[in-house]
Amino acid sequence: MARPRPLSGFPELLPADRIVELHVLDTLRRTFELWGFAPVETRAVEPLEQLLRKGEIDKEVYLLRRLQAEGEEEGDPARRLGLHFDLTVPFARYVLENAGKLQFPFRRYQIQKVWRGERPQDGRFREFVQADVDVVGAGELPFHHEVELPIVMIEALTALAEVGTPPVRVHVNNRKVAEGFYAGLGLADVAAVLRTVDKLDKVGPDVVAELLRDEAGASRAQAEACLAMARISAPDASFVDRVRALGVEHPLLDAGLVELARVVEATAEHVPGALVADLKIARGLDYYTGTVYETVLLGHEDLGSICSGGRYDALASDGKDTYPGVGLSIGVTRLVSRLVGRRLVAASRPVPTCVLVALTAEEDRAAADCLATGLRRRGIATEVSPSAAKFGRQIRYADRRGIPYVWFPQADGTHQVKDIRSGDQKDADPAAWLPPAEDLRPRVVPVVSSPA
Amino acid sequence: MARPRPLSGFPELLPADRIVELHVLDTLRRTFELWGFAPVETRAVEPLEQLLRKGEIDKEVYLLRRLQAEGEEEGDPARRLGLHFDLTVPFARYVLENAGKLQFPFRRYQIQKVWRGERPQDGRFREFVQADVDVVGAGELPFHHEVELPIVMIEALTALAEVGTPPVRVHVNNRKVAEGFYAGLGLADVAAVLRTVDKLDKVGPDVVAELLRDEAGASRAQAEACLAMARISAPDASFVDRVRALGVEHPLLDAGLVELARVVEATAEHVPGALVADLKIARGLDYYTGTVYETVLLGHEDLGSICSGGRYDALASDGKDTYPGVGLSIGVTRLVSRLVGRRLVAASRPVPTCVLVALTAEEDRAAADCLATGLRRRGIATEVSPSAAKFGRQIRYADRRGIPYVWFPQADGTHQVKDIRSGDQKDADPAAWLPPAEDLRPRVVPVVSSPA
Repeated sequence: MARPRPLSGFPELLPADRIVELHVLDTLRRTFELWGFAPVETRAVEPLEQLLRKGEIDKEVYLLRRLQAEGEEEGDPARRLGLHFDLTVPFARYVLENAGKLQFPFRRYQIQKVWRGERPQDGRFREFVQADVDVVGAGELPFHHEVELPIVMIEALTALAEVGTPPVRVHVNNRKVAEGFYAGLGLADVAAVLRTVDKLDKVGPDVVAELLRDEAGASRAQAEACLAMARISAPDASFVDRVRALGVEHPLLDAGLVELARVVEATAEHVPGALVADLKIARGLDYYTGTVYETVLLGHEDLGSICSGGRYDALASDGKDTYPGVGLSIGVTRLVSRLVGRRLVAASRPVPTCVLVALTAEEDRAAADCLATGLRRRGIATEVSPSAAKFGRQIRYADRRGIPYVWFPQADGTHQVKDIRSGDQKDADPAAWLPPAEDLRPRVVPVVSSPA
Repeated sequence: MARPRPLSGFPELLPADRIVELHVLDTLRRTFELWGFAPVETRAVEPLEQLLRKGEIDKEVYLLRRLQAEGEEEGDPARRLGLHFDLTVPFARYVLENAGKLQFPFRRYQIQKVWRGERPQDGRFREFVQADVDVVGAGELPFHHEVELPIVMIEALTALAEVGTPPVRVHVNNRKVAEGFYAGLGLADVAAVLRTVDKLDKVGPDVVAELLRDEAGASRAQAEACLAMARISAPDASFVDRVRALGVEHPLLDAGLVELARVVEATAEHVPGALVADLKIARGLDYYTGTVYETVLLGHEDLGSICSGGRYDALASDGKDTYPGVGLSIGVTRLVSRLVGRRLVAASRPVPTCVLVALTAEEDRAAADCLATGLRRRGIATEVSPSAAKFGRQIRYADRRGIPYVWFPQADGTHQVKDIRSGDQKDADPAAWLPPAEDLRPRVVPVVSSPA
């Protein structure tokens, strides 16, 4: 078989980079658990009709078909399965399916792969990992969770700063502000305006103004008012007066401004400087009804949002009850691919192994295995040399694998251990020796960048 | 939308059971890392031609198709994608793809979902998690890894005994023993004999004898010899004489008996009683060339093997180099579904949360949030009450969610914390209070079974 080649959009990592990714995942999980989110994992597949309820995404779904069913008629469309493209739709289905067994407000985190048949580009993949937190209520959900959730994500992402992850800034808007403003302006097709304004960063204000006139039925003055609002952003509640100065009145706008000001002010107390009101944030998905969030990695704005979400009121409903929620989703693969791709963060070694036990002769393998077992029992990751080659070759093997210590059982029953980086070799007691704490496991550390 | 129903073969867990599964996954990962296996994750999809190289499995593959490509002609078959059905085939491809960047012998663990379009039944799923370890050499791989790998898996599974997992026993055979024996008997179609003997547990000796005669061209005496060998099992090397007593001679048989005896004897030193030679073990897959393994959970033999694998010499080859390996795979979903389904193992609570901070009034939320932040900084998972309802209701909320402690900030600035299980309420210093260690996080513990 010829050497296989990577599949575009389906990223894979070498072990050293996978160690970075695992550190990111462990850190996120740890933060989510400290905030009382319970772990949930859903199956990777959903009925197609479930996936298509959300709109906009239908072209990107991967359908599944068993090979042995090839050539048969397609079955009942309700029974066709597709891979999930996010974790929100499966979670809404999980809540409905298990509502009788869950306590509300239900707080869960979920860290899984999702799939989208999109054209791959930098930071955009066909298979990638998301890390989501949501709080869902039964019938109602207090507003304060819209303040709580961005703080959870800011803390989770800030916990990664010590390994070299750049700081983040969450950009927040409120769907009620946008909808109230457009309605107050007299624009009937609010959804069309939202979709158009969402393109601002991609196509620029002139094209958006044109599209607002051509596709959303806006007059020149209405289009200008939309753009004027989209230009407003602030790290505090000063945005409220600037919106008011545009002269638009609507009850939904009033309600949205109060909520958005509360989000900005309350988060400023807990995580100062990490969140701004940004009135151009639209979020494409049509199920958001309150606060919406996007997040940039400072200095890496070109990557797009690494953590997005919002408040939704009607995503999950079984006809009798509705389950409003608020959630945010970190694009883990997007974040990690930048961290390792730009060499911002690295693992101190590509293997868990701390000690390689050297072998004088193959007959000593059983004794070396026992020694290794003893070290492992004390938490020291250990391998026995794969062969009883000359010591020089065994040391080079450890060096190539990135293993810092080689252990030499001596003929007289004593032991020595060599730090192969410094060459230091010392007597060691297998029942007591410990490596320095920083060598015990691979560490994930910032890369000190040299000038390009 | 009507209440959704589970999809057969795609299991999902409630949070308490997911906590058990995470404990299993964390424990396996910890053991694998202590033995020096590096983490690898591969994409979920492989080109279909890659998946079909292995035979026998073709009917079970899920093919992928983008919804927007529906109705188009099927493209180049080499570019069609399917979901992987195990982690061995993707790993072999990963090794070939990255051979220049890996150090051999390369040791990796891989814990991921796989998919098979099989008919679901007890312990058999369409989507499930596998946890694999493999060692792969470049060109050659010493035999001693065939001794090492079952010990790794026995230690990983035995590390789960403290939470209530029953002990395991690995059943081992060697493909050389079987192939040498059949060839020495004069049976030409060794693969057909292997496949037939593999059905012994399912259909019984009489049907196997019949099939050996009808489908593998065996005489009555040859079929009886095959069955006589398949009946041999032993916890030590005594099986060698019993095979010899059947009077069959073949160089491959000799080589296989030496290897199998070494596996049994060497593992008996490290993990006494956990491994037996069992000459009926065949393993369906045709790429095994040396030791093969299956593992039963004692008292749960009906579940089938929970950890299987073997030595393979030619799974990965780029024409120039071959990469022989040996690996074992734990069926995590099969194991966990039994542990939680039979209530052998349970989580002490279904949420990470240790403390609920009670609220006297909604105006106190900011202060309660600060208090919660302080507790989290000290590693105590904390939530703030979702509402300032009467304390009785807030305590009932904690109780329903399984949160053991409720924190009451007092009007005079002091604090009290109540253990809601005992009703004990005491003064507490938010900068110093710690719960007993067993309450800090949900514990995974054996369920003491009551008589049925």
